[in-house]
Amino acid sequence: MDLKKEIREIADYPKEGISFKDITTLFKNRDAVRYVTESIYHGFKDKGITKVVGLEARGFVFGGAVANQLNAGFVPIRKRGKLPSEILQETYELEYGSDVVEMHADALSNEDIVLIHDDLLATGGTAVAALKLAQKCGVKQIYFSFICDLEFIDTPNKQLLRDYETQVLVKYN
Amino acid sequence: MDLKKEIREIADYPKEGISFKDITTLFKNRDAVRYVTESIYHGFKDKGITKVVGLEARGFVFGGAVANQLNAGFVPIRKRGKLPSEILQETYELEYGSDVVEMHADALSNEDIVLIHDDLLATGGTAVAALKLAQKCGVKQIYFSFICDLEFIDTPNKQLLRDYETQVLVKYN
Repeated sequence: MDLKKEIREIADYPKEGISFKDITTLFKNRDAVRYVTESIYHGFKDKGITKVVGLEARGFVFGGAVANQLNAGFVPIRKRGKLPSEILQETYELEYGSDVVEMHADALSNEDIVLIHDDLLATGGTAVAALKLAQKCGVKQIYFSFICDLEFIDTPNKQLLRDYETQVLVKYN
Repeated sequence: MDLKKEIREIADYPKEGISFKDITTLFKNRDAVRYVTESIYHGFKDKGITKVVGLEARGFVFGGAVANQLNAGFVPIRKRGKLPSEILQETYELEYGSDVVEMHADALSNEDIVLIHDDLLATGGTAVAALKLAQKCGVKQIYFSFICDLEFIDTPNKQLLRDYETQVLVKYN
């Protein structure tokens, strides 16, 4: 299945010169939902994944679907102030300034083998923040899954992710 | 499976007198993920559901999982300003003031049979906003799925939802 055709590109959004990848058109296609879920499942079914970690908010959609397929639990990493119990926190850099992501402190343990999932890998800032949160919990192993990778963006964070086995379904060069 | 045991209650959060239902402890339990997904699937597998509509953000988790199981598409209803293309908008009342939810205008059509899913039904404000968004698209039929219902809260919005076939897995009296 040619997933790239299912992703709507929106010119000059959120600002001039950016071609935004709108994954909601993929989400709404039932064949694409099944194809993406199965592709991620087949990529990781032999890894002994115990928890799928999804990044708020678009990473929750296939994060949930894949957790169910892999018979794993699901752990949300959320934006600041959304989680009600004790949290771990990581700061990451934005183009201007910085932002924070949070995970419940008891969400992962040193028994876990973790698949971190998000819809889109751009600069890798939130992905590396998620990596650090999982590492703080001493998990056994960490894998990554992204639907899209904007490969034309290269950053120190993305170089850091190269040490981890990563599945990407759609590449933009 | 006694799902209520899997949901952490946090006293006096977000304010005094409220017992917050923290569903992240259910999410992280692999048996609960499978049990909830299967329960929703079995509740709606004969309805011809073409789209599962999930409410941001916690409704995305099982929304995605159930869309895959039902071989349906997934449609996110999001908070203000998160969707990049043409939108429909609904306002709903909060305790103080009001808020807005949005859905892509092309997300649903008059061919669709829709399951609207969220983790928790409290006052019904966002659920009724989602109902109105689906109705604006002229969908054929609308069903609802909630993991939890705070039954001790009764509102005109919740009375309105009684006209729709609704599955609730955990009831708080």
